[in-house]
Amino acid sequence: MEHDITIKQVTTGKAKPDYNHLSFGKYFTDHMFVMDYNEEDGWFDARITPYEPLLMDPSSLMFHYGQSVFEGLKAYTSQKGGIQLFRPEKNFNRMNISSDRMNIPEVDPDFLVDALKQLLHIDRDWIPVEERQSLYIRPFIIATEPALSVKPASQYKLMIILSPVGSYYAQSDQMSPVSIYVEDEYVRSVKGLVGFTKTAGNYAASLKVQQKAEDLGYDQVLWLDAIEKKYIEEVGSMNIFFKINGEIITPALNGSILDGITRDSVIELLRYWGWNVHERRISIDEVKQAHTDGVLEEVFGTGTAAVISPVGRLKWKDEELVINDNQTGPVSYDLYDTITGIQTGATDDILGWTVPLQEQET
Amino acid sequence: MEHDITIKQVTTGKAKPDYNHLSFGKYFTDHMFVMDYNEEDGWFDARITPYEPLLMDPSSLMFHYGQSVFEGLKAYTSQKGGIQLFRPEKNFNRMNISSDRMNIPEVDPDFLVDALKQLLHIDRDWIPVEERQSLYIRPFIIATEPALSVKPASQYKLMIILSPVGSYYAQSDQMSPVSIYVEDEYVRSVKGLVGFTKTAGNYAASLKVQQKAEDLGYDQVLWLDAIEKKYIEEVGSMNIFFKINGEIITPALNGSILDGITRDSVIELLRYWGWNVHERRISIDEVKQAHTDGVLEEVFGTGTAAVISPVGRLKWKDEELVINDNQTGPVSYDLYDTITGIQTGATDDILGWTVPLQEQET
Repeated sequence: MEHDITIKQVTTGKAKPDYNHLSFGKYFTDHMFVMDYNEEDGWFDARITPYEPLLMDPSSLMFHYGQSVFEGLKAYTSQKGGIQLFRPEKNFNRMNISSDRMNIPEVDPDFLVDALKQLLHIDRDWIPVEERQSLYIRPFIIATEPALSVKPASQYKLMIILSPVGSYYAQSDQMSPVSIYVEDEYVRSVKGLVGFTKTAGNYAASLKVQQKAEDLGYDQVLWLDAIEKKYIEEVGSMNIFFKINGEIITPALNGSILDGITRDSVIELLRYWGWNVHERRISIDEVKQAHTDGVLEEVFGTGTAAVISPVGRLKWKDEELVINDNQTGPVSYDLYDTITGIQTGATDDILGWTVPLQEQET
Repeated sequence: MEHDITIKQVTTGKAKPDYNHLSFGKYFTDHMFVMDYNEEDGWFDARITPYEPLLMDPSSLMFHYGQSVFEGLKAYTSQKGGIQLFRPEKNFNRMNISSDRMNIPEVDPDFLVDALKQLLHIDRDWIPVEERQSLYIRPFIIATEPALSVKPASQYKLMIILSPVGSYYAQSDQMSPVSIYVEDEYVRSVKGLVGFTKTAGNYAASLKVQQKAEDLGYDQVLWLDAIEKKYIEEVGSMNIFFKINGEIITPALNGSILDGITRDSVIELLRYWGWNVHERRISIDEVKQAHTDGVLEEVFGTGTAAVISPVGRLKWKDEELVINDNQTGPVSYDLYDTITGIQTGATDDILGWTVPLQEQET
């Protein structure tokens, strides 16, 4: 797939928000990348345009049947100078995996990385320079065909929008542990469904339970499997890790959980450091037993938005397990420090994860 | 909830499509109903406007996390004169049930029935008069707040759009039996998820399997439960009924299947006629055994679009069960004839299901 990207720039950029008070995904940069799809032309009309509203027919299939995929990644100002991305090819490869399940036509990942770099270059003065700030990147595809029949659309729109963000969590200290409510009535997904994809419907279905957790005084939800209501799946919209008796355990990719890129990076880094990491089924009972035995040393979530989110308290039925005295543990801290360090150029990129913006500009 | 509905009509209506060649949900009438929601005002600015594209911010939550609900019902030209609706209050009540699961604010069903009647009155010359034609009505709510955080939106848009339709199936004879592929790898939903709601994501997730069924030469998919891959859930986007040895069986409402209004009407009508109707779990093995024993007399799907859709062939693993010699059975035929008769005024409304448009106009 080769596309020329036409570029139409704003004459005057928007005023920038206060970078010390950035909510997640609330402010958007001056430009966006857009590309359309139809059956005759495939993906066509790749363009960078001013950020602006879309005109959508009320019958657009997205509004009715939700056929869509999205991704989330970040660009960082490197402390060594320049702008860098973190494993962007993995996001666009995963978008194609999601698209395959959702009957959406695939897109050349290399082309999208290149398009993203061009967009970032144009909006480069929006990329935050302070620690813990970054430019969140949201690529997404929606079914735009105007029709009410339940079928794969014949028309789509792919967009990339950019939003400067601070910490995902409201608190300024990223590493303060979160409290988790273990849900045993509602479920997030099940094998044979679309839990492994980043598609809109997975997130809509989770809102009621997130609300329930908050009403009960907890920050996030820990999901159990739909079949036995026993095996741990994900936390909120993050993958989850347990450090038990000196070893690291995370649920295996089973078709219902997301193949997180931070998850993958954490596993790779832990193994590089010499830890035993087990990707396998782990039940809530095993976690509880480890806590009883005094060997549940750390629990943490992983995701692009939060990077590492330590878990301090775990509410399961009538019990509340307090983990590591509700403090961030050393593995959580080292992972956060190293991964954000690599992302921001403060730490050597020992695993070859970062992609500089400049290479593409020559 | 009381709202004034402001009305802005087109000066000149669109050209109407050829009513003898109507695809499902492809043509829309001159007007639509729209209402907005925000946290300060609740639902506000109820209006009937020309049918026109929406301006949507690229960050609108619907595009990313799919928070939405919809309904489907029909208006008919009665053979006794006038226009009538079929159990519209049930659709708007069910929309609130879906909304509750999807964290969307509820709407007064009586107000929406009234709003729909006003909209239908304005677009009344779009309502088909021929047999088997009707005006399909699509109410839906989408999350419009521009934000990328995973949370219930603070802004929504409710719309009702109208589309003249012929038969849902391409063939002119509605009652020609469909062939069904029984899926045992992918699933539609599971208890604890959102299968009982009409929300966009349920339909997006089904597309791949519908495609698989078509590739194998079958019209639609029969879904099994996600846990034991054994109990029958729905067919395509319809509920399903089995006539076995003189009794009628349909899967019970279990949290993962839709509480279909045609399903409810079929059960009520069958009981009115004196049939034994059982709402219970039914396994694919029981269906197969009934076929082997020569007592699988009829199978049919029920839904607003098709009303009754007889099933002639059922593909399950290596076997194909042919039902009633691949002919429409008498119960399927009587149900179709009676329900469409009631809907179109050809048959007395013995169960009080229809709502005339005129009452509201006084």
